[in-house]
Amino acid sequence: MNTMAAAVFNGKLTYVQNYPKPQIKPGWARIRVKLAGICKTDMEIIKGYMGFKGVLGHEFVGVVDQCDDASWIGRRVVGEINAACGDCDWCRRDLGRHCPNRSTLGIYALDGCMAETCILPVVNLLALPEGLSDERAVLTEPLSAACEILEQLPLTGSERAVIFGDGRLGTLCAWVLATVLSDVTVVGHHPEKLKTLRWRNIRTVLREEDVDPGADIVVEATGSGAGIVTAMALCRPRGTIVLKSTVAVSGDVNLAPIVIHEQTVLGSRCGRFADGLKIMRDFPDMPLDRLISARYPLARVEEAFVRATQSDALKVLLDISAFNEE
Amino acid sequence: MNTMAAAVFNGKLTYVQNYPKPQIKPGWARIRVKLAGICKTDMEIIKGYMGFKGVLGHEFVGVVDQCDDASWIGRRVVGEINAACGDCDWCRRDLGRHCPNRSTLGIYALDGCMAETCILPVVNLLALPEGLSDERAVLTEPLSAACEILEQLPLTGSERAVIFGDGRLGTLCAWVLATVLSDVTVVGHHPEKLKTLRWRNIRTVLREEDVDPGADIVVEATGSGAGIVTAMALCRPRGTIVLKSTVAVSGDVNLAPIVIHEQTVLGSRCGRFADGLKIMRDFPDMPLDRLISARYPLARVEEAFVRATQSDALKVLLDISAFNEE
Repeated sequence: MNTMAAAVFNGKLTYVQNYPKPQIKPGWARIRVKLAGICKTDMEIIKGYMGFKGVLGHEFVGVVDQCDDASWIGRRVVGEINAACGDCDWCRRDLGRHCPNRSTLGIYALDGCMAETCILPVVNLLALPEGLSDERAVLTEPLSAACEILEQLPLTGSERAVIFGDGRLGTLCAWVLATVLSDVTVVGHHPEKLKTLRWRNIRTVLREEDVDPGADIVVEATGSGAGIVTAMALCRPRGTIVLKSTVAVSGDVNLAPIVIHEQTVLGSRCGRFADGLKIMRDFPDMPLDRLISARYPLARVEEAFVRATQSDALKVLLDISAFNEE
Repeated sequence: MNTMAAAVFNGKLTYVQNYPKPQIKPGWARIRVKLAGICKTDMEIIKGYMGFKGVLGHEFVGVVDQCDDASWIGRRVVGEINAACGDCDWCRRDLGRHCPNRSTLGIYALDGCMAETCILPVVNLLALPEGLSDERAVLTEPLSAACEILEQLPLTGSERAVIFGDGRLGTLCAWVLATVLSDVTVVGHHPEKLKTLRWRNIRTVLREEDVDPGADIVVEATGSGAGIVTAMALCRPRGTIVLKSTVAVSGDVNLAPIVIHEQTVLGSRCGRFADGLKIMRDFPDMPLDRLISARYPLARVEEAFVRATQSDALKVLLDISAFNEE
């Protein structure tokens, strides 16, 4: 069988039963996908973001079924999503996620993981420990993206952090920050989601008026540009505003507060999977499973995407393992 | 004589001959102003910025004529513009320029220096060395603001910097960066100004298309928000965009590149006068005098402000010493 089932975007999100199976190149592995997650980026792509066409998806857990290096075959893995050249300055500094020649799983020039199989360079793979469930492992990618904040921003532990957004990304950022900070507040507009994300000392509020100004760190994870003005207002002089969602601002936005208060705005994107896996190992009580709002078989991918857009949805998974029994 | 000549903003820029002389408080000094400079902020204030009313001006050189500590009297000085409380966390960290209780010379709750005399806390004063001319000393404030970049951003010397803006601030930023970096390019739209700012290895271009992307540091000093989109495009992944001018962006601005490339946007404002004076001492060939486009007596302050708005103008000075002969 050289074809497979796949969720393809070709101008329209489509479930395709006979998509060509990807062929591995030297140094690459093919992975049979068990679970895939739907991310905000996937939902943006089907609205035209990045101009991507092909198999969607970049969050997965699966089992290697083809590889030149036989030691990988049969291993359960997750995989870094940026396929970097390995040879440029960025790659040499272990920052392949900024490699200018990279392709990105399900986002740019590389078919994604919402399919029976996907391919990635072997160097991108991380074998999973036995005790880690598929349901937690599939969250490695978004959890690592939240961990990126810790990689970029040196924290002493005494900082006060405020997070705008109670969606998947806001929740994960709150959980990751709560592993090192005792004073973390999330501002969100969905009481149920706020309830879901309470863990450790995280405080949740429905109204930004209930947050004291002067926060050391403000994370904008609303997915819309709306939060940035409030972030400037709540951040202390010389504090840091972390931009986690790829947003546009509209209308007149006065950036003078950034200059007057010498604030730092820090763009933050993908993180190292090793960091995500480490935090899962160090904090086995992090309630990642609460993020999973629904599971659908791949054939019902369109339904799954509709579910993912609903305001109460956190993570929606696609169950692909059924296709893997040969 | 308890009145003096002053340039006052009271809804309209006005030359006033009988403005009340400021009274010193304990710990403060009164300074007879010799020269004052017109800054972009002054021009914004007379359009309503900060809602300030009173004597304009925060750039000056003068001579102390009243002070409890007699050792200051007769000394030629410049002065830090933020009168801080001296008692809060910010002040204790030597960051009085972010003190929440501060007043600011000619900008907020404190009459400025475009007058025969002004007052400042003694701790704000820096005595000037004899060899430093008044014309260079009056530029301490804007030069220190440019130096703030060096204070905020650790540089190795091998970075490539691009500066947008060939006005006063862009020029000073270029000169300051050129003291530590060998690769500095200024993008401006005024051939004469670009000629004026050439010093050391500074390269000047008229079109942003002539700048290679991938700069480590991009300084937005155009005074308008226009530069920020180009700054994002020219800055390398994980590079830094320094915002020097208090700007607003209008229309739809896509901030996604900041996130995708994990760029840092750094707001940067006033600097320490000690840094400005040090760089003048260490680089006596820095061509600061080239910045002075015109000098007017205080009585012609309205004319001076008109001159300062002309596109070929760099720094316009007010000559106040004539009023000081008693």
